[in-house]
Amino acid sequence: MKKTWRVLLVGFGTVGQGVAERLRDGATELAAVGLDAQIVGVVDPVLGSIASQDGLDPGELLDLMARYGSLRDYPDAEPAGCGVEAIDTIDADVVFEMTPTNLVDGSPGLDHVRAALAAGRHVATTNKGPVALAWAELSELARVNDVQLRCEGTVMSGTPLLNVCEGGLAGAGVYSARGILNGTCNFVLCRMEGGIDYDEALAEAQQLGYAETDPSADVDGWDAAAKVAILGNIVLGGPLTMTEESREGIVGIDRSDVDCAAQQGNRLRLVGSVRVVDGAVVDPKVAVAELPFDDPLAQVRGAGNLLTFETQALGPVSIAGPGAGRAATGHALIADLVAIQRRVGS
Amino acid sequence: MKKTWRVLLVGFGTVGQGVAERLRDGATELAAVGLDAQIVGVVDPVLGSIASQDGLDPGELLDLMARYGSLRDYPDAEPAGCGVEAIDTIDADVVFEMTPTNLVDGSPGLDHVRAALAAGRHVATTNKGPVALAWAELSELARVNDVQLRCEGTVMSGTPLLNVCEGGLAGAGVYSARGILNGTCNFVLCRMEGGIDYDEALAEAQQLGYAETDPSADVDGWDAAAKVAILGNIVLGGPLTMTEESREGIVGIDRSDVDCAAQQGNRLRLVGSVRVVDGAVVDPKVAVAELPFDDPLAQVRGAGNLLTFETQALGPVSIAGPGAGRAATGHALIADLVAIQRRVGS
Repeated sequence: MKKTWRVLLVGFGTVGQGVAERLRDGATELAAVGLDAQIVGVVDPVLGSIASQDGLDPGELLDLMARYGSLRDYPDAEPAGCGVEAIDTIDADVVFEMTPTNLVDGSPGLDHVRAALAAGRHVATTNKGPVALAWAELSELARVNDVQLRCEGTVMSGTPLLNVCEGGLAGAGVYSARGILNGTCNFVLCRMEGGIDYDEALAEAQQLGYAETDPSADVDGWDAAAKVAILGNIVLGGPLTMTEESREGIVGIDRSDVDCAAQQGNRLRLVGSVRVVDGAVVDPKVAVAELPFDDPLAQVRGAGNLLTFETQALGPVSIAGPGAGRAATGHALIADLVAIQRRVGS
Repeated sequence: MKKTWRVLLVGFGTVGQGVAERLRDGATELAAVGLDAQIVGVVDPVLGSIASQDGLDPGELLDLMARYGSLRDYPDAEPAGCGVEAIDTIDADVVFEMTPTNLVDGSPGLDHVRAALAAGRHVATTNKGPVALAWAELSELARVNDVQLRCEGTVMSGTPLLNVCEGGLAGAGVYSARGILNGTCNFVLCRMEGGIDYDEALAEAQQLGYAETDPSADVDGWDAAAKVAILGNIVLGGPLTMTEESREGIVGIDRSDVDCAAQQGNRLRLVGSVRVVDGAVVDPKVAVAELPFDDPLAQVRGAGNLLTFETQALGPVSIAGPGAGRAATGHALIADLVAIQRRVGS
């Protein structure tokens, strides 16, 4: 008999709503891959926390958000506790952890992931904090509790990367990763190529929702550095901590730098990279690189992302796709759940 | 206890030797993904057919090929029969079918795949003929015999595509595929951009081993058309036969066409594409397209390949990688075996 996965959504911002959107709009696609998922709880400190073992309808959740900006009036749902309490008490097979990234101490996501794994629940997360800061601890916790911990959405949103390294590239000998991992910085650099100043380009990125009000996580390179740490640990085998990384951002780049590069036939790009030499993960860094026009990374426009893996069997393999977006990031969690189902059986 | 996969190699040309190379050189990587494979037979009508349930050493097979161009002197191996007879009689878990593609009637690969599936053996193949011509029949045969049929290597060699659609893109709603699927044609067009005539560029491709002595399969678009049929059937759900496709090649393109495009800021590319509309696979075609310089397909240089999937959840996702090569194509079969192990359990 086919299993119905009872899913607890922790966080119902853009990503959580993206999951609800995929469950509502992608029903045909999910049935085609044999996935049956039911939301049994949504926990968000601002929007409300509700639970129902009969299942919460994703369309109804999205309607409530659109109409009231709150989940509290969902009919016949029980009120639920906050983060860790809800994870401990709501009977779920899998927890989707989608709270905002915090690269200082990982909270609250790190506590959520720890609690979920310890409670014997599978976890899929889009939160870079826990994965970048505590991968070794968390993957061990998953192992001893015999559950899966997956995080496709932490790098390039739902663009398949981590699943590819585990799937089609399994055994290919991936020994380096290098790419444009932050769409906000790439957007700003591209707009500056179009003749706009840094401040104006950043303001535009903020208006379009690419950059936060405090843009530091993006423009200082922290977001890309977290992704490099994740790639180093998961794809290249680690261990790698963010403190080992060399990191720079795009703050301080001005139009004369961009124009000067263009006069040489080059473009500026913020590039994250890490590689393996003799079994050790080395050279983790995020840096502004001046690349020739015809370099594949220089060809990435706007908020796009592109990552190239160097492999023993295939040489370079590049994957380009969205680095953000509601449905795109929502898909990451669906893809992780498909992978969990295949791993543990349905 | 970990399963040792007993593998029968059918065909020991470039691809078969690529598999042996991956098994010899990638031992660490294969162990890391939990794969244990042993070659129990190699069947090739020209190079010899041998079998041993104790296992044939991949390095020894490659050494014999390098020294004698034949497998017949492998120590302590039993002589084996030819194609179908060997498939029926050699006790193997999985058959790697790697004979040359024949798009007229699929033989001998089609008979090999049928025989292997009917004998209850899993199949991984790099042979486009059986898959492009008879996917519906063969996938049904696999289903009734409860075995896996996989063919990552039929499109873009071992670059992960079919495994990605089944894995990280599962549930994302892929509704079209469009790309540069034939490296030989792309190489010739790029050389013509460099100011060389068609005949000279083709001769160069033949010298480099990109094109066969009879280049028709490549330059008339047959190879790309077979790949479009495979994508239409496997990724987009089919059914699609090659006879439904509109197909053109690069024969007849001359330098004036290439120069004329360049004067408009464009490049000529042989593009294969197919899409789904209202649940039906439509518009399968291979055609020369004039694309602006900054189109991702126009950026593909030399013998490279690039495929873009349009998806509901993610928008466009592009994958670039090798379209040919010994280790690259050999990897396809390894990736398929990893997928088989995950699907059926070890």
